[in-house]
Amino acid sequence: MASGGGVQVSNKQVILKDYVTGFPKESDMELRTTTITLKLPQGSTGLLVKNLYLSCDPYMRSRLSKQDRLSYVDSFKPGSPMNGYGVARVLESGNPEFNPGDLVWGFTGWEEYSVLTATESLFKIHNTDVPLSYYTGLLGMPGLTAYAGFYEICSPKKGETVFVSAASGAVGQLVGQFAKLTGCYVVGSAGSKQKVDLLKNKFGFDEAFNYKEEPDLDAALRRYFPDGIDIYFENVGGKMLDAVLLNMRLKGRIAACGMISQYNLEQAEGVHNLMAVVAKQIRMEGFLVFSYYHLHGKFLETVLPYIKEGKITYVEDVVEGLENAPAALIGLFSGRNVGKQVVVVSRE
Amino acid sequence: MASGGGVQVSNKQVILKDYVTGFPKESDMELRTTTITLKLPQGSTGLLVKNLYLSCDPYMRSRLSKQDRLSYVDSFKPGSPMNGYGVARVLESGNPEFNPGDLVWGFTGWEEYSVLTATESLFKIHNTDVPLSYYTGLLGMPGLTAYAGFYEICSPKKGETVFVSAASGAVGQLVGQFAKLTGCYVVGSAGSKQKVDLLKNKFGFDEAFNYKEEPDLDAALRRYFPDGIDIYFENVGGKMLDAVLLNMRLKGRIAACGMISQYNLEQAEGVHNLMAVVAKQIRMEGFLVFSYYHLHGKFLETVLPYIKEGKITYVEDVVEGLENAPAALIGLFSGRNVGKQVVVVSRE
Repeated sequence: MASGGGVQVSNKQVILKDYVTGFPKESDMELRTTTITLKLPQGSTGLLVKNLYLSCDPYMRSRLSKQDRLSYVDSFKPGSPMNGYGVARVLESGNPEFNPGDLVWGFTGWEEYSVLTATESLFKIHNTDVPLSYYTGLLGMPGLTAYAGFYEICSPKKGETVFVSAASGAVGQLVGQFAKLTGCYVVGSAGSKQKVDLLKNKFGFDEAFNYKEEPDLDAALRRYFPDGIDIYFENVGGKMLDAVLLNMRLKGRIAACGMISQYNLEQAEGVHNLMAVVAKQIRMEGFLVFSYYHLHGKFLETVLPYIKEGKITYVEDVVEGLENAPAALIGLFSGRNVGKQVVVVSRE
Repeated sequence: MASGGGVQVSNKQVILKDYVTGFPKESDMELRTTTITLKLPQGSTGLLVKNLYLSCDPYMRSRLSKQDRLSYVDSFKPGSPMNGYGVARVLESGNPEFNPGDLVWGFTGWEEYSVLTATESLFKIHNTDVPLSYYTGLLGMPGLTAYAGFYEICSPKKGETVFVSAASGAVGQLVGQFAKLTGCYVVGSAGSKQKVDLLKNKFGFDEAFNYKEEPDLDAALRRYFPDGIDIYFENVGGKMLDAVLLNMRLKGRIAACGMISQYNLEQAEGVHNLMAVVAKQIRMEGFLVFSYYHLHGKFLETVLPYIKEGKITYVEDVVEGLENAPAALIGLFSGRNVGKQVVVVSRE
């Protein structure tokens, strides 16, 4: 059906119904089918895109809740479509830097078609001889997060000992592989036998353990790090951080990337061993990938050859269909996903 | 009384009776009077010194207890004299770098006379036109702690906002003055009206508050830092750290120098707001002065002129007599001292 020069099509969207407290449920979101005219408004400098892949990431948990003092990204707007990182095909462009047919990754809507006005947060995809979905993970935001967090924050040196929590996730699996490429000893923790097997057999971690089967995390860490931990890549927070602090070495570094174990609690758990920061002269540094986008070119130059040479591998948990996006997002918080959680909106 | 070429004199000592748990008491220590022959043993490369001033410092709390995984200095040995930083006069030297009559500061015994063998941890005092006791504080270990912690760890810039806890203590009062010299806005917390007055009227802090009179530390910090804190010089830990984390600015820095509020607890309090480290990209870094002794020369060059020009001032809480050292040390943990706690062993 034509309308004002554009075809009108149906547009499925994922809507946040209302702000969430505690553990999110699928029913906190709903699917809505609207229509969209496949034509940019007159004079728009934005892009009309068809969304192909969407990314489910732990940082999105805070966006499901009302903004608070520790929020670092806007909350989703109840009643409106959600958004996040994704890969999309440009259908129409009001911006001279993009052309119809281009593939882009960056911030897009949780819907089939989006009109994107914030084009400064979009990257054009030039290398298409890797799976396109990798731009939601290995080659996109989580990949750059792992790269910046490990190389810029952790100051790794050959021979150092590295611990990664949530190690089979979108970021963790890469940190472990970067650590091995740097000549470090690396151990990962994850929440199932399958994930532990992946860490050891697929990603080349020296050791891995299932934290759910360790009654004493401190003892587990002492077992794998008898001489202590030089670098901790922190993805979980809470009890694990407390145990790690006891096991850090002098002048150890902690890259604080996220604290997923805490995101659904009304109040975060208390961390008791912070005196270790003084006693061991630890540097604990938080970082957000937004501060490192200037490194994306260098990052791709480093990582693309590794992928082609088979020196870096990547595991995705791919769900088909926008209608399955809410469950996929929520699965992150129970650890249901194995590897980077991707949602396929369309394979074109 | 002569003995082997040396005079035998009485030597009062402060002895730790047994390891302490919980809040230390005066009766955990005792005074013992022994005798010492004022002559170095044949072939000794050490120094025989007469102790003049002793320093009471918060880090000594952990030395009263049995070594644990967060200890960073040896425990005192029950039944033996305690030791710590002090100022002493060399009576006899087996080390060519020191001569009888020299004044030194560094590690010495809690007694009237000591034989010191670890001469590498002693500094010769060249500038004696300042109070000698300053070498237990402003010009000694606490001074270098403040200097290294503020300039090396906090990366301060003119116009930034600085918060110092335990701000009237040996380290805090200097951090505040360094911050003012750098052109920062600085606020301190302390535990009495008298200390708060000192901070504002003597040390030139822009603002100060009595944390004991603030039912809501977060609200207090918001009042003094409506736009947040760039730099936190951490001396207390626990609830104050939790409140500070909520009030830190993006890319804020926390120099973790000590956590005195936690030292007498069986288990340290839980700190809940560590997600702020991620969300605000905070760098929290622990440090020990031992790593910065190489800066001592530069530090003196910086600070001595400031003292002479009256740009840096210092307040000491001076107790007379070795017999009063146990009470002075314990007073640190209830905040009894006003300014740097010094014990006079002898004014010669």
